[in-house]
Amino acid sequence: MNASAPMHQKWIYRQHPTGVVGPEHYELVSTPLVLDLSDGEVLVEAKYLSVDPYMRINQSLKPTYNAEPHPLNTVQNGGVVGQVVASKAPHLATGDWVEGMLGWQTHARCHQSVVRKLDPGLAPVSTALGVLGMPGRTAWFGLTESGKPRAGEVVVVSGAAGAVGSLVAQFAKKQGARVLGIAGGSNKCQWLTDTLCLDWALDYKTFGEAQQLSDAIQEKTNGVDVYFDNVGGWISDAIFPIINRRARIVICGTISQYSGGLDAPELGPRFLHHMLYQRATIQGMLARDYAHRMDEMLRIVGPWVQRGELVFEETVVKGFEALPGALNSLFTGDHRGKVLVEV
Amino acid sequence: MNASAPMHQKWIYRQHPTGVVGPEHYELVSTPLVLDLSDGEVLVEAKYLSVDPYMRINQSLKPTYNAEPHPLNTVQNGGVVGQVVASKAPHLATGDWVEGMLGWQTHARCHQSVVRKLDPGLAPVSTALGVLGMPGRTAWFGLTESGKPRAGEVVVVSGAAGAVGSLVAQFAKKQGARVLGIAGGSNKCQWLTDTLCLDWALDYKTFGEAQQLSDAIQEKTNGVDVYFDNVGGWISDAIFPIINRRARIVICGTISQYSGGLDAPELGPRFLHHMLYQRATIQGMLARDYAHRMDEMLRIVGPWVQRGELVFEETVVKGFEALPGALNSLFTGDHRGKVLVEV
Repeated sequence: MNASAPMHQKWIYRQHPTGVVGPEHYELVSTPLVLDLSDGEVLVEAKYLSVDPYMRINQSLKPTYNAEPHPLNTVQNGGVVGQVVASKAPHLATGDWVEGMLGWQTHARCHQSVVRKLDPGLAPVSTALGVLGMPGRTAWFGLTESGKPRAGEVVVVSGAAGAVGSLVAQFAKKQGARVLGIAGGSNKCQWLTDTLCLDWALDYKTFGEAQQLSDAIQEKTNGVDVYFDNVGGWISDAIFPIINRRARIVICGTISQYSGGLDAPELGPRFLHHMLYQRATIQGMLARDYAHRMDEMLRIVGPWVQRGELVFEETVVKGFEALPGALNSLFTGDHRGKVLVEV
Repeated sequence: MNASAPMHQKWIYRQHPTGVVGPEHYELVSTPLVLDLSDGEVLVEAKYLSVDPYMRINQSLKPTYNAEPHPLNTVQNGGVVGQVVASKAPHLATGDWVEGMLGWQTHARCHQSVVRKLDPGLAPVSTALGVLGMPGRTAWFGLTESGKPRAGEVVVVSGAAGAVGSLVAQFAKKQGARVLGIAGGSNKCQWLTDTLCLDWALDYKTFGEAQQLSDAIQEKTNGVDVYFDNVGGWISDAIFPIINRRARIVICGTISQYSGGLDAPELGPRFLHHMLYQRATIQGMLARDYAHRMDEMLRIVGPWVQRGELVFEETVVKGFEALPGALNSLFTGDHRGKVLVEV
């Protein structure tokens, strides 16, 4: 084996986490790069690799949105933006930028049908993993199809400084709603009001328990029409008692439960009587259900991105070897917006 | 005061219950009957008086579907079927049967606009408090507007032997669904399968905890498409993990929480991640929202009643003085179908 031959690096998922996922659950494996392609295939070199909270859901040992957890001893699944470095596909040429679920590896050999070609002139290619990709789709369709805010209504977003939450909050402002963002830390909250121009922001870490947070939200908003939930747990406990008539609660994520709380659910107050009083709706949503409707979203959100009307912050971590640590940081870190690893 | 003059008896709500509501929270008051009427008014003599679980919700000290609890030292609110015994109203004559929210009193002086005239030829007048009244409306619109079962789907009903649940179960069968009823006690369960012809019935009292009940439901149904919930608590805990893709959960009641659990919610496992996995919906519903659509329901359900296609069992308790005890029995008793007090 020639030591100078190009190498194919992969992060192999080796062990189920019971708590927070981190580098100890992965192994970095390096093999010589195989360059042969079949007709219709391309070789993609990864430039940006995504870390997303859903990855931890899929490591749960119980059935989740997939019947089986992510298989052990395989490359960690995930979204990638990369460049075609070899092609036997008629529609893709060397140098083209593409996005697809290519996993945590430096190179991926794949059929052209599993990637979508990106237009680097439209927006930075990394946005295909953020505002113009899965997180954007989650925010857009979760808000417009399940949350359905009307102008003048109050929208509360948990995880409001995150990849999805920061977009939901801005989309809700564009719908004419008054928006309260909940996030952890004063820096994030200042960003929510100063940069994203939300009406209110609350740092959940300054509240000891749900009732205090509930009182603070009630005082500012006088009741919640749409609650877009990325977090769950006691933050949601603060919202349920102060929903308005016909409120809509969108369950997009429950990140507070991801580090063990899916396998062995923690206890919280029973709240369904509030649904009864207010004839409210709770709806779970997943981005995958709207994959076929990306064109609808891009037609509306694309121009906002091009005109600079949306803030889509990226936290870019450098180096392929940083991937498991970057995933871990979603649950422990202090990032804003979309977390990406750049090779 | 003439001792032989007709008396007006009323059950006055005197004290907020903290646990189960019962006779100790009421006082029976008797005053001479006042017979004078203004134009447009009638005097109604109660024949059937309703006891309903919602009465306990409205005694909660926290805001519920009403901002304020039922006021103390007033007649207990409730549905009544009675006969007009005096009339100054052009559209109602002495002897007419009417239904309205006239409260727990032997007589009510009221404007003709607050009662609806009943046709005793259509069905027994007591059905205006059951299958052709509020409980029927709750069951019909809750199932058809929120549950939306399709033929072949699995519908699970908690409190399936109750006034609302027993109708939901039968309406779901008419929609072509396969129906599993959950009730307490083998007698109720036998009634559900033998008389209501449900596909399955489970006696929750034979299960020690949610997981066992969950396993039993899963084994029979292979997953739940519609869960019509009258009970809440650990029975619901058994359902959430086994809902199917795009399941609809109708929150009609949470009777397990009514005897104190609304003011100080008990703890249960956090379950919203299941909504996410299955993109499921939870919707709270109240009968009052469909009061203006009674004609729609009566057009469909009325003929079923006339043709004997629905079982609408009544538990009739005799005597006006039995009212608070009958209300108490909703939370402790072993009745089937609608509980009524007959004067």
